[in-house]
Amino acid sequence: MAESLMILAPAAGIAGLLFALYLARSVLKYDEGTDEMKRIAEAIREGASAYLARQYKGVAIFFAIMFVVLLALAIAGYLVFFVPVAFLTGGFFSGLAGYIGMNMATRASSRTARAAQSSLNQGLRVAFSSGAVMGLVVVSLGLLHLGVWYYILNWYYQALEPAARISNITSAMLTFGMGASSMALFARVGGGIFTKAADVGSDLVGKVEAGIPEDDPRNAGVIADNVGDNVGDVAGMGADLFESYVGSIVATAALAVSAGFGVPGVATPMVLAAVGILAAIVGTFFVRSGEQAEQSALLGALRRGVYTASIIIAVAAFFLVRSFLGSENMGIYWSILAGLVAGNVIGLTTEYYTSSSYGPTRALAKTALTGPATVIIGGLSVGMLSTALPVVIVGAVVLLSFFLSGGATNYDLGLYGVGISAVGMLSTLGITLATDAYGPVADNAGGIAEMSHLDPEVRKRTDALDALGNTTAATGKGFAIGSAALTALSLIAAYRDQLVSIAQKSGMKLVLDFSVLNPKLLVGLFLGGMLPFVFCALTMSAVGRAAQSIVEEVRRQFREIKGLMEGLARPDYARCVDICTRAAQREMVAPALLAIIVPLLVGFLLNVEAVAGLLTGATVTGFVLAVMMANSGGAWDNAKKYIEEGNYGGKRSDPHKAAVVGDTVGDPFKDTSGPSLNILIKLLSMVSVVFASFLLQNALMK
Amino acid sequence: MAESLMILAPAAGIAGLLFALYLARSVLKYDEGTDEMKRIAEAIREGASAYLARQYKGVAIFFAIMFVVLLALAIAGYLVFFVPVAFLTGGFFSGLAGYIGMNMATRASSRTARAAQSSLNQGLRVAFSSGAVMGLVVVSLGLLHLGVWYYILNWYYQALEPAARISNITSAMLTFGMGASSMALFARVGGGIFTKAADVGSDLVGKVEAGIPEDDPRNAGVIADNVGDNVGDVAGMGADLFESYVGSIVATAALAVSAGFGVPGVATPMVLAAVGILAAIVGTFFVRSGEQAEQSALLGALRRGVYTASIIIAVAAFFLVRSFLGSENMGIYWSILAGLVAGNVIGLTTEYYTSSSYGPTRALAKTALTGPATVIIGGLSVGMLSTALPVVIVGAVVLLSFFLSGGATNYDLGLYGVGISAVGMLSTLGITLATDAYGPVADNAGGIAEMSHLDPEVRKRTDALDALGNTTAATGKGFAIGSAALTALSLIAAYRDQLVSIAQKSGMKLVLDFSVLNPKLLVGLFLGGMLPFVFCALTMSAVGRAAQSIVEEVRRQFREIKGLMEGLARPDYARCVDICTRAAQREMVAPALLAIIVPLLVGFLLNVEAVAGLLTGATVTGFVLAVMMANSGGAWDNAKKYIEEGNYGGKRSDPHKAAVVGDTVGDPFKDTSGPSLNILIKLLSMVSVVFASFLLQNALMK
Repeated sequence: MAESLMILAPAAGIAGLLFALYLARSVLKYDEGTDEMKRIAEAIREGASAYLARQYKGVAIFFAIMFVVLLALAIAGYLVFFVPVAFLTGGFFSGLAGYIGMNMATRASSRTARAAQSSLNQGLRVAFSSGAVMGLVVVSLGLLHLGVWYYILNWYYQALEPAARISNITSAMLTFGMGASSMALFARVGGGIFTKAADVGSDLVGKVEAGIPEDDPRNAGVIADNVGDNVGDVAGMGADLFESYVGSIVATAALAVSAGFGVPGVATPMVLAAVGILAAIVGTFFVRSGEQAEQSALLGALRRGVYTASIIIAVAAFFLVRSFLGSENMGIYWSILAGLVAGNVIGLTTEYYTSSSYGPTRALAKTALTGPATVIIGGLSVGMLSTALPVVIVGAVVLLSFFLSGGATNYDLGLYGVGISAVGMLSTLGITLATDAYGPVADNAGGIAEMSHLDPEVRKRTDALDALGNTTAATGKGFAIGSAALTALSLIAAYRDQLVSIAQKSGMKLVLDFSVLNPKLLVGLFLGGMLPFVFCALTMSAVGRAAQSIVEEVRRQFREIKGLMEGLARPDYARCVDICTRAAQREMVAPALLAIIVPLLVGFLLNVEAVAGLLTGATVTGFVLAVMMANSGGAWDNAKKYIEEGNYGGKRSDPHKAAVVGDTVGDPFKDTSGPSLNILIKLLSMVSVVFASFLLQNALMK
Repeated sequence: MAESLMILAPAAGIAGLLFALYLARSVLKYDEGTDEMKRIAEAIREGASAYLARQYKGVAIFFAIMFVVLLALAIAGYLVFFVPVAFLTGGFFSGLAGYIGMNMATRASSRTARAAQSSLNQGLRVAFSSGAVMGLVVVSLGLLHLGVWYYILNWYYQALEPAARISNITSAMLTFGMGASSMALFARVGGGIFTKAADVGSDLVGKVEAGIPEDDPRNAGVIADNVGDNVGDVAGMGADLFESYVGSIVATAALAVSAGFGVPGVATPMVLAAVGILAAIVGTFFVRSGEQAEQSALLGALRRGVYTASIIIAVAAFFLVRSFLGSENMGIYWSILAGLVAGNVIGLTTEYYTSSSYGPTRALAKTALTGPATVIIGGLSVGMLSTALPVVIVGAVVLLSFFLSGGATNYDLGLYGVGISAVGMLSTLGITLATDAYGPVADNAGGIAEMSHLDPEVRKRTDALDALGNTTAATGKGFAIGSAALTALSLIAAYRDQLVSIAQKSGMKLVLDFSVLNPKLLVGLFLGGMLPFVFCALTMSAVGRAAQSIVEEVRRQFREIKGLMEGLARPDYARCVDICTRAAQREMVAPALLAIIVPLLVGFLLNVEAVAGLLTGATVTGFVLAVMMANSGGAWDNAKKYIEEGNYGGKRSDPHKAAVVGDTVGDPFKDTSGPSLNILIKLLSMVSVVFASFLLQNALMK
């Protein structure tokens, strides 16, 4: 039964894509507004496409090199031949998901601005639909890709007996993860550097120095800023969550074999994901409200969609687990549910720490009274303090899913439970991502409204949509961060399984000492604990440097272009786009290489146990740091907005200027370094899994 | 032989104290300057003594409660009766070391200002001598205390056979560590909050808002600022390094038993430390230079003292290891040497990242051109990037000392090697601390010079001394941070030994699974990885809050006291001292309790394996975060100074204001949260060791 229902995976993928196509066409039917609006939207679209084309070209070189390396390993017998190919397709589909999402977003933003002229609800409709396209494309492509490969591999290995067959299939599928993660890391880091360099740079000169509003057309960085939203927050996020989604499924599938589940163990996460896609489609129909709805009603509408999908999944998963894994394994169901609930709860903690409706961000806003230094100290404190609850929640999910699944008596079963809790957490991704991805569209719509001098009421509406997006994005971050930690743990377990299975196949005697008091593993732990810090240093300083170039360029244009400040001349927007593009291309290489090279180096110079330490250390620190950076950034952003609402002196007061400093520091925190960490910790594990065989046989210290 | 030479430990302690007394008397012979200077020095001394008295009173309550708890555990049979007493004496001597150091410093600062009127070298002589008093008192009291206890315990357990005797002795000695660490944490956190609240608060109003110089007598926070230097940077640092010193020795001693060394294994670190004291005394005689020496010559003089002491120790340790542990264990000698060298090398990396003579801090200064936000992003990046080398160095020391000591064939021997590498690193503490502790004295001397309107040349000289102190402090930080990581690792090993030995004694069957894939340990790792972040959040936000109170108070005085700004009226200094005192008292409780309660809670709710995870996770993150915070803070400080030297616009330019924001954020980083982390990670382990027996028998999940 499980094997035949596996067809649901590609089928749901196709259904999701078709529904996304339907949504996309309905968005494109909307009016794009005035010629001015079209012109601006066109400029943003062109900039974004040009950037993405260049980024993909750069990434293609990396993929080509890795392909050759993997091919060489395959020829040397360390890998099966599917691996290099799967690496490519994983990367390709991750990039494709980001590209489609971005393409939709750039077409939807002017239409959202136009629709917001009619009403808030109309604006929401357009923006949300384009977000839903992105959400559905990400999950559908992910699942379709996995489903098709499953059938190809199943056909290829048909001569093998079932156990060996499924083991070979899941090993190969792990490699898609490496392709997807590599692509995602480039997209997040490159896009993140682009968007925040443009954002920080143009804000520093425009808002802080020149005292002109955000998105003012006199600011030369303003188109780059809007391009950045699309290449970073949309394309980068798409590639990122594609990676999370695929990663959680393949990691769980890889653990199915040692858990003793075989094919049903692989089918469970895949069919669960298929159910998730269908539930997301149903959920989108619940996101609607009256024409004159208030902002709070809109939030209710969004949440209704998510909760409907969650309930469908929670019910379906029960029957799914019972029929696939048997009623003796209902603990697996509770693991799924634990993940599903935990994702939401982490989201709530994020909201608590970052929303100006609650104490922490309000207290942070008050620190602005004593200047930027206290704002920075306060924001870092909020972020650091906010790590406690997510860690406790993830810890609880690990223990619950491990022990409820029966880990006390069957260790590998428990690990499978941990793995599938991440799949449960991400099962609603189709719709949660929709509520998340519409934010940048609304943000862009606001920019277009500002630049094309629409009625200020329109800007107010797009701002309301944007603010709503910040709240739903908080939940989205909960899912992304929580699932990253759980998936990374599953991958470490998969890494161990991989080592054991390689040793078995080659008749090698292998005693793995994964104890924290094994000095090599301990050194690995330290190195892993340090890696996320170095990674953040590289990405943040890249943003800082690129932002400085933008500052200098915008200042230069203010100085040299006559009549610019008076609105008589136009700035040279393309120049800033170009500066960001080149900076992002140049600066994304080092941090991405870190993720590939460090595990190989540690494995080669020390041994495979040290790599286990490295992965664990990086997962722990990466998770904590990611939460901290996301929440510090969010709190700064909203503290600034809270002051802009008229508190502590309001806009242009000294406290506001101090809060802007916090917000500016928070930009690379929450949109460049923080979200990239989620990818980093998984990519490290993926690389280690793929190279396990090589490292096992070639490490200097065995 | 080893047993009889153990007498060197208390003997060297007494010798060190006598020499410190001689130095102190020579400092006190110097002239204290004008009546105005005496009056200011008196005010600072009074404030500092009053604070310390209050702090010790608060801490006494904690010690009383813990004493009762430990006594109850002893009565219930979980601990031997020495433990509660040893806990008290450990805390007492740690506090005493801090008190003596502070007392000396407050008496030396006006004398340093007076001496600096004659020449730079005279100023150095006085300041360095008072630093040397502190350095020698810390190591001498530490070693004397351990030595005396050793003889008491040895006498008490004389009826036992040698193996059981030494095992009982080392177990009890570990408990001094817990007392010393608790005291140190309070002193560092409380003193750190005091000093940085005063510093940040008075700078924010004085330098940034009112535009008056640092230490200007019109600023109401200025006395509190100078009091803070004494209670934080002097008394706090003294208690802190006392803890490091004692901790490294007792942790190594605890590992001596399972390494199979018995008494000689305990004698080696203690006699090594005794040699270190004598070497430090010799070293002080090398710190002198010509009367008209330049700053660089002074740095040479300081380094000559340290290197002389290092060479003496390196030579003596060779013969010591050979005669105590036999020529078959010369690997232990190389471990000592690895530690000694590594401390210096970490110090060099600190200097590289934080001195304005090198690229990173210069590049950071340049970010000030684009405002405070880029300064913050830049400084965080420098700090994060700077974690790489110290982690690699500590990793190398762990592997070198483990394998050179013979860990490949005898695991426990390797761990002993790791432990003694920390003792080697700290063996020069008597003199390195002297070169470190004179900095705050020079800083205070500058404040007194400013407040009593001495010739600007004097202030320039004390600034030069202070700058020199920053360089030597960088090295000092290398030793403190590096040794903390190594000692914490030894303590985790000691924790495991303790569990095994308890189980053996009580006939319990114990299978410890310290694998990173043990879910309970893994959850512990996550919790441990998060703990330093929460700890920093608490301490930093405490500084932020207290600084805000100071800002408001200083602003109020400027507003309400007529004629203050014109220099016609005096501000109410005592009020600011009082605000800082109360804030520090109130705010130091929560972070300190965290260190005690979390390991107990984790051990009780989960099990002893989860505690091992907690300790490991906290050590990894705590170490990395401590390095980051120290170096970010140092880089910001020196980038600001670099701009003040006239670069990028110099004092009062916009870049300078931006750099001041960085420096202000860096203050709690480098002087409150960062150094406290070193203590935190050890205290967590100490608590776990002391409560191991209780947790082993009472954990909910076994």
